[in-house]
Amino acid sequence: MPGALLTDLYQLTMAYGYWKAGMHEREAVFHLFYRKNPFRGTFAIAAGLELAVQYLQNWHFTDDDIVYLSTLKGAQNKPLFEAEFLTYLSELRFTCDVEAIPEGTMVFPHQPLLRIKGPILQAQLVETALLNIINFSTLIATKSARMVQAAEGDSILEFGLRRAQGPDGGLTASRSAYIGGCTGTSHVLAGKRYGIPVKGTHAHSWIMGFADEMEAFEAYAAAMPHNCILLVDTYDTLQGVEKAIEVGLQLKQRGFELLGVRLDSGDLAELSKASRQLLDNAGLYDALIVASNDLDEYKIRDLKAANAPIDVWGIGTKLATGGEQAALGGVYKLAAIQDEEGIWRYKIKQSEDMIKVSNPGLLQVQRWYNDAGKPIADRIVDDWQPFQSQRMISLQQQIEIELGKGNSQNLLVPIFRNGDLVYNLPSLDIIRAHCLRQQALFSKVQLEQYPQGLESQLFKIKQQMLEDINQSSDGLISVPH
Amino acid sequence: MPGALLTDLYQLTMAYGYWKAGMHEREAVFHLFYRKNPFRGTFAIAAGLELAVQYLQNWHFTDDDIVYLSTLKGAQNKPLFEAEFLTYLSELRFTCDVEAIPEGTMVFPHQPLLRIKGPILQAQLVETALLNIINFSTLIATKSARMVQAAEGDSILEFGLRRAQGPDGGLTASRSAYIGGCTGTSHVLAGKRYGIPVKGTHAHSWIMGFADEMEAFEAYAAAMPHNCILLVDTYDTLQGVEKAIEVGLQLKQRGFELLGVRLDSGDLAELSKASRQLLDNAGLYDALIVASNDLDEYKIRDLKAANAPIDVWGIGTKLATGGEQAALGGVYKLAAIQDEEGIWRYKIKQSEDMIKVSNPGLLQVQRWYNDAGKPIADRIVDDWQPFQSQRMISLQQQIEIELGKGNSQNLLVPIFRNGDLVYNLPSLDIIRAHCLRQQALFSKVQLEQYPQGLESQLFKIKQQMLEDINQSSDGLISVPH
Repeated sequence: MPGALLTDLYQLTMAYGYWKAGMHEREAVFHLFYRKNPFRGTFAIAAGLELAVQYLQNWHFTDDDIVYLSTLKGAQNKPLFEAEFLTYLSELRFTCDVEAIPEGTMVFPHQPLLRIKGPILQAQLVETALLNIINFSTLIATKSARMVQAAEGDSILEFGLRRAQGPDGGLTASRSAYIGGCTGTSHVLAGKRYGIPVKGTHAHSWIMGFADEMEAFEAYAAAMPHNCILLVDTYDTLQGVEKAIEVGLQLKQRGFELLGVRLDSGDLAELSKASRQLLDNAGLYDALIVASNDLDEYKIRDLKAANAPIDVWGIGTKLATGGEQAALGGVYKLAAIQDEEGIWRYKIKQSEDMIKVSNPGLLQVQRWYNDAGKPIADRIVDDWQPFQSQRMISLQQQIEIELGKGNSQNLLVPIFRNGDLVYNLPSLDIIRAHCLRQQALFSKVQLEQYPQGLESQLFKIKQQMLEDINQSSDGLISVPH
Repeated sequence: MPGALLTDLYQLTMAYGYWKAGMHEREAVFHLFYRKNPFRGTFAIAAGLELAVQYLQNWHFTDDDIVYLSTLKGAQNKPLFEAEFLTYLSELRFTCDVEAIPEGTMVFPHQPLLRIKGPILQAQLVETALLNIINFSTLIATKSARMVQAAEGDSILEFGLRRAQGPDGGLTASRSAYIGGCTGTSHVLAGKRYGIPVKGTHAHSWIMGFADEMEAFEAYAAAMPHNCILLVDTYDTLQGVEKAIEVGLQLKQRGFELLGVRLDSGDLAELSKASRQLLDNAGLYDALIVASNDLDEYKIRDLKAANAPIDVWGIGTKLATGGEQAALGGVYKLAAIQDEEGIWRYKIKQSEDMIKVSNPGLLQVQRWYNDAGKPIADRIVDDWQPFQSQRMISLQQQIEIELGKGNSQNLLVPIFRNGDLVYNLPSLDIIRAHCLRQQALFSKVQLEQYPQGLESQLFKIKQQMLEDINQSSDGLISVPH
């Protein structure tokens, strides 16, 4: 994981500005959140925390970095940064407090996925990399969960490396897809690095390397009798299935099994039905039908609706890149800062677009459950408010909701304290299991109506701040907490 | 750059199959190409070669990799690969010949961007990573060139790291955007690693950290008098411009200059015109107007059409990820293989969709120019054909074109010979200059009508192979060359 230069230049010019103004060690609170569920959906799956932890643990400026920064020039060829500032950077270590929502958790708009509290210079310098890491992982984990839900329990394999955005993009895509609930990947390095089950058999080029399809199938079955899924669409798909059946019957005689056939083109609904029939007629009831070819959650749903007897779904491009949405629009906003006397001041960013007005304070996300353990509402609260109501304002309906005496759970948990890791990073399998449980937990919740909003007191503080802004000459307002 | 495990499992199962069948050292030819210009456009910019070279130079299986592969199991818990094969892999070095079209070159569908000739086992194992690397870099270089063309000579800055697909995705996006013609990036690590000029000033959070906007502007100008572009839309944009002008006039008195203002929301056409007026009225004629906010080539074109006086365009998400198209659909197809007697056999993959039928042979791309040096046609030829015609079949018009005595240039150049690098990798600035020259070269060419196709002899061979296929029982045909 790259170090502290994985950032935008303006983070460094602002850092320099804070340092010049003597403000660099003032404490500030930033929240990382998104404003709109990706894919026009109803949720996201938080992901990327382990990668963010690696980045923060490795966060420092190397001697090389400092030399590079010393070469940067502004107008009139003046150095951008003075030497004393660069010395300060070279000695800097990460000392912030960080809270985060664990990977695999179902989350909603405006909820802080990460909360950073610490010297404003540091909190600002890590912004870009944290957004980069969390945005991408969360995007792909969400896409994966959407596909897993569409597949209604069928296995989904991620095949996207060749179309992913770079080697590292492919690795993170495989990791995130697995978190969302995929059962495996074609990507061998992801298998080695993350322990994700790896899957795959052969390509069209295998068939083309032989004189004919039958010879190619037989050669493959001879080499891989215990991993034999045959790609049947190189020429005529159903003729291919018939040849695969022949090979399957030969394998049976040798004490092996044809694991299945893969369809990679044509009308997958019709071809899967016809293939199933042929396989069943030959007694190969256990042979799976694997389908691929530019699939996504929408096509899975259509094929399911058409009763296509597909057992395993292989998904590449749209899973590894997000397809129609290539980025989660996560943002990182200042919510409070100490003034020159060390008193915390709440901050919000004004916008004509109400959805873009950020929330002030030191925020926590509470998930409320009824006695049966079913989620009834998510609300954002301010940890600095000494007395919190049992009420919230739902952002969808703009009504106040009484939460009663249900149980609530804090979604943000401590990750770093004063720069030290205080969180036990769960294994990827535990994250994936958590994610599948989250999906099951919300499977009977009408997510469009699921109350999401602000604790009532916090809502009032924000409203008051907005009113004060409208009476002030400037777009900013700060109140002591 | 990761090593040989950056691949799909099926490449390894096929490799094992070739090895078991004693075919693993048969020579084969593969071509990497795409079938449709990205973004519904008329061209692509080849990119990623340097990263592909790094991958191929580093290509080997480490002891760790071999241990991991030995743990993989098929059905009945049988090891997927036998030990002798893994020993073979551990001793394997890359020995193929590789040709490629240099980075920054304008390219068209079906043209091999890479050609690999060597033992089929090796050529197959490197497929996935080469596609991953070339697909992504080419996608982003193309997107960048489209934006550069829309901006008609204005400077474009790439601001996409926070929304890029991972840290490495961000690095490659910055590199590719620069190749396409962007003038700089916000991404500091890309600046350090690739020598790309880095740009940036401050964010909204800078303003929010101070009591009011004026104080924030003054503090920034005090720290960075020689890199002072002020973001003016935190509250009211035009009031922000007026304050920026005040700061600009103060800077002038101190012998510095306000470099410009940045607009990041609202109606950029109206706001840029009003801002220009205010700046000019104050005598700040040289202060630039930088615009950002979810821009792409379409919005640049609209703003240009509305005569928006924007000088510099800051583009994030859609440049770093491709936006509406997150992946180039590059493929890697077998075009020839030696038979058991060492005789080369041409190969094509049949498809009902003519655009999906691959081209056979050992292909080269020729660009033809008229005497004035203007490109008149691109054609794909087979290097194995001893006599090549001066004619081609244009794929768009399906007509034969006589090329006459123009000059032609081979676009594919030697990169590796027997696994050794024989290419001098150009610097990134030279690649970028080449790309800008390519864009200028084609600026007066009607790309929709620009003839692209196959040398006439090659076209006939392919037609003959397709006819033979239709008469054969199988979808494959091979003819000796």
